[in-house]
Amino acid sequence: MLIRNARVMTCDPSRPGLGIVEHASIAIDNSRIVAIGDVTATGDVIDAKGALVTPGLIDCHTHAAFAGDRANEFAMRAAGESYEAVAAAGGGINATLGPTRAAIADGSIDSILHDRLVALRAAGTTTCEVKTGYALTTEGELALLDAIVRSRAPLRRIPTLLAHLVPPERTADRAAFVAEICEQWIPRAHAATSVDVWCEQSAFTLDETVAICDSATRAGKRVRGHVGQLHDIGGADVLARFRALSVDHLELVSSAGIAALARAGTVAVMLPGACVQLRLPVPPIAELRAAGVPLAIATDLNPGSSYCESLAVQMWLATTHFQMTIEEAWLGVTRHAARALGLEATHVGMLAPGAPAELVIWTTDSPIDVCYRYGTSLVGRVLTP
Amino acid sequence: MLIRNARVMTCDPSRPGLGIVEHASIAIDNSRIVAIGDVTATGDVIDAKGALVTPGLIDCHTHAAFAGDRANEFAMRAAGESYEAVAAAGGGINATLGPTRAAIADGSIDSILHDRLVALRAAGTTTCEVKTGYALTTEGELALLDAIVRSRAPLRRIPTLLAHLVPPERTADRAAFVAEICEQWIPRAHAATSVDVWCEQSAFTLDETVAICDSATRAGKRVRGHVGQLHDIGGADVLARFRALSVDHLELVSSAGIAALARAGTVAVMLPGACVQLRLPVPPIAELRAAGVPLAIATDLNPGSSYCESLAVQMWLATTHFQMTIEEAWLGVTRHAARALGLEATHVGMLAPGAPAELVIWTTDSPIDVCYRYGTSLVGRVLTP
Repeated sequence: MLIRNARVMTCDPSRPGLGIVEHASIAIDNSRIVAIGDVTATGDVIDAKGALVTPGLIDCHTHAAFAGDRANEFAMRAAGESYEAVAAAGGGINATLGPTRAAIADGSIDSILHDRLVALRAAGTTTCEVKTGYALTTEGELALLDAIVRSRAPLRRIPTLLAHLVPPERTADRAAFVAEICEQWIPRAHAATSVDVWCEQSAFTLDETVAICDSATRAGKRVRGHVGQLHDIGGADVLARFRALSVDHLELVSSAGIAALARAGTVAVMLPGACVQLRLPVPPIAELRAAGVPLAIATDLNPGSSYCESLAVQMWLATTHFQMTIEEAWLGVTRHAARALGLEATHVGMLAPGAPAELVIWTTDSPIDVCYRYGTSLVGRVLTP
Repeated sequence: MLIRNARVMTCDPSRPGLGIVEHASIAIDNSRIVAIGDVTATGDVIDAKGALVTPGLIDCHTHAAFAGDRANEFAMRAAGESYEAVAAAGGGINATLGPTRAAIADGSIDSILHDRLVALRAAGTTTCEVKTGYALTTEGELALLDAIVRSRAPLRRIPTLLAHLVPPERTADRAAFVAEICEQWIPRAHAATSVDVWCEQSAFTLDETVAICDSATRAGKRVRGHVGQLHDIGGADVLARFRALSVDHLELVSSAGIAALARAGTVAVMLPGACVQLRLPVPPIAELRAAGVPLAIATDLNPGSSYCESLAVQMWLATTHFQMTIEEAWLGVTRHAARALGLEATHVGMLAPGAPAELVIWTTDSPIDVCYRYGTSLVGRVLTP
């Protein structure tokens, strides 16, 4: 197969910047890229007509495996209600537990997840991380993990086990709950490539975070963390100590925390939609950049703070509200997002010989346009094997 | 024609709130709505399958009649360049004058405008205000007005003559330029239903604004103003004195200005995308609301601060970043937007007997969802006569 007449953004680190190759063809064989440039191939030919062709996007932080929604909570908050009032009315993450547990029980979680993943792909995403975290029982979390793995949606899923928070029925024995995560969930979560923990006043303490990361490491898994979204309780330092793949949110993080992340090679995942929606401060982008922390960008797709399947609108927010550069935005949804998922050895997130043939043909020839022209999709065609 | 099995949001002021009628049909005859409720009609039948049906959206502030883009300027600003640096590199509104004048000269403005209006309609907009303002010569502005009027794009266009700023070649004789606007542009702009002026340090002074509003009023036209986006130079008070249809932006406005707007019955048009993109302060929504100023929401579609055809993403920004309610968001793109365009007598922006059959069938039954689920279009089908 050959894609010809393309402006190819390779995101290949062996090329400068975003690795753009002008007037190029992409030769594909057996679902892998064979060559890029002035090349030919047998089989089907797609004429890109001069359009931009990029790696399929990587959404490295989603909570796509949920049932129900929290539209009423969104409306309450738009009407000026406080978090406390929303929580008192039964809102928050706990409000998603019941519908998700029910959808696991009746099997409908499969079609719910499928439809959501199809929407993600239509928006240009060909690799999608999906976290568990809305069952919060051993069997329920493992069932969510199974649903993510067995999905037949046409994009790569990277399943993450998420220690989201302590559910209401376990607050009285939270030590036992944390022990269950460490001794039951993690050892049995074979399909999860990493373990994520929400390190926050309303979720897991630093000590509990250490216990969970320690268990994950012993099980041979990498760790990630939701860190510094609402409060900085020191999560960045702890996650860096465990050489976390990523820490995500980071609206609030100390300079020492940033230095620790840089030393550990941990990716900082920016979630600008959730930041805007919750009206949080903008993360310290300039300081993260200066420290050399790689930046990724994700949708945070979830029913509470960011019901969004589109990385493109996140790229607009990243390059405006977050003052990230165009190059940072693109690396944030390709190569750096791959790194946040532990995929850097696979060539996912770049177009290069040996990489899987997962790509987007856009309706523009300009990498800037995908950030600049917001609200309307510029995705022309999404190709996956 | 009949649309059956719909959840109809009428936005009819004779009904409470957003005027939702459950399990309703809409009878249409000769491109007008005849009845809503438990009704029948002859002709085609569309089964809405329980989905939300709303008035076609009204985008009451766009600069859609431009050629070229300013993608490079967007990239410079994302890279941290100051306004001054961007302007020194030839950026800003003046950068759009050359391409637009050229597109008028070679006739390509028609197809450029057409494609953009088609994109607006696909996003659910059935009435679109389009400003001139990128020619800034008498003949050029009148030519832009003609292009807006003669467009065959399938949505209603409301043309506005815009005194945008003093172009570089006229700064030496700006008094003559303002006189030309008052004595040539306005009297000859027969197709424009209103005259808009950018009242700002870098555009027109208060005295010049008064002269332009005075000329417009004498020509029998209503006025509107770009007010308080970057500086508050007192534009709200002046525009209110002329009983302006709307004042737009309002990031910075005094309490006296707000009181004047309330007394004048002027609509405040919120442009949250441009506000986020330029990283401006949020307008004083609570104070505007308390004063009883009607709020509208628009895309501000333009190549400098908001390249966006989607009102839905503006509704998400309005209900999160701007803390507007769901009801305010919907009225802002329907009834209040109609009022900002002087259309309140036409029933445009509502679904009621006598109103034109311009409506959107959404892929959800929830008015909240259109604000809440952002970045992916929930438009199912757009109907216009």
